[in-house]
Amino acid sequence: MHTTTDLYTEVQQFYARHFHLLDAGRAAEWAETFTVDGWFWPRTLPEPVRGRAALTAGVRRTHERLAEAGEQHRHWHGMVDVRPRDDGDLDVRCYALIYVIPRGEAPRLHLSCVCTDRLTREDGGWKVAERCVTRDDLHPETVGAPR
Amino acid sequence: MHTTTDLYTEVQQFYARHFHLLDAGRAAEWAETFTVDGWFWPRTLPEPVRGRAALTAGVRRTHERLAEAGEQHRHWHGMVDVRPRDDGDLDVRCYALIYVIPRGEAPRLHLSCVCTDRLTREDGGWKVAERCVTRDDLHPETVGAPR
Amino acid sequence: MHTTTDLYTEVQQFYARHFHLLDAGRAAEWAETFTVDGWFWPRTLPEPVRGRAALTAGVRRTHERLAEAGEQHRHWHGMVDVRPRDDGDLDVRCYALIYVIPRGEAPRLHLSCVCTDRLTREDGGWKVAERCVTRDDLHPETVGAPR
Repeated sequence: MHTTTDLYTEVQQFYARHFHLLDAGRAAEWAETFTVDGWFWPRTLPEPVRGRAALTAGVRRTHERLAEAGEQHRHWHGMVDVRPRDDGDLDVRCYALIYVIPRGEAPRLHLSCVCTDRLTREDGGWKVAERCVTRDDLHPETVGAPR
Repeated sequence: MHTTTDLYTEVQQFYARHFHLLDAGRAAEWAETFTVDGWFWPRTLPEPVRGRAALTAGVRRTHERLAEAGEQHRHWHGMVDVRPRDDGDLDVRCYALIYVIPRGEAPRLHLSCVCTDRLTREDGGWKVAERCVTRDDLHPETVGAPR
Repeated sequence: MHTTTDLYTEVQQFYARHFHLLDAGRAAEWAETFTVDGWFWPRTLPEPVRGRAALTAGVRRTHERLAEAGEQHRHWHGMVDVRPRDDGDLDVRCYALIYVIPRGEAPRLHLSCVCTDRLTREDGGWKVAERCVTRDDLHPETVGAPR
């Protein structure tokens, strides 16, 4: 059993490589960082994107669009809260910022989100089994009565 | 005695939950992450906000204002420098960014700050005993002769 | 031999102090966080800035300019990917954001970059031996055929 310290840095390291792959448009390699039946649910979609083929296809489409537009995306995960589960998986809740950098122009903060992941250990590393992402402009926590 | 590695990740994990509570408007739970007589001094105020009742009340007021305005705040702490003290407390200096996300609009970077905390161990976790926050737009380090 | 957990937090801690020194304009102390013959290559320059004297001089010039303009810079390193090398050095690839905060004005995101460092152990800590920085507005990874 790993200590919390080990788990915490493993998650940070995992997210770094995971988003380096995504932002470089390395679609198939990025999809490999999900479990075989892993899913990603941006809550603006009616249902999750399931499985590596669908995940790869989605990134390829996005990347082609960005290449045509001359834009680079950068994903930052931060304020990472890691909670080990009894089954050995990890519940992670963190903030996510997406920056858009158009060629020859200043960078622009595009979206602020909250990401909740369930990570599972596989082959000595971590994989995303389940991911939900909510957008702060659409799903703010400040709505409703203050607690 | 914990190693620096443990301390460093504990501080990162602490900040994550601490600001998840704040940004969700969970005022009383957030105030519990300070010591009983803990204080928070944004240097734009003439004196610190002292004790959990005052800290809770302050967050409630802010959260009501944000709910009415339809705005979500997100606090990011980063570039965290942790220095253990001889008495077992931690001196932490880090950068802080505050994002504002108006409902239906793009996120906006509101403030860039420097935060210095004294954290103290209590009940196996960390609590904020003292916090000073300076705003980079009002208190830049670049003023005065370069060193 | 240190574990990956130790290395990862050591790099994060190193970057925090390294950029606190830079953003405070403490030019000579910042240059000491490079090896004696360490170099820093922003890819907008035809060749690297080599050695502590040149690194110090460059920061002094920048800091004087910022002091005159009444601007504070803040450097954030994040999404840090640490890969230990066989020779004990570390290959690090991370994202870097540079914020500009003009006196009395809102902060502005100035640049989004990718930083690749080779860090080497010296006197029990880490030093930058080699640094390359590319700007996402000039050197996007999305150019070329999607993979």
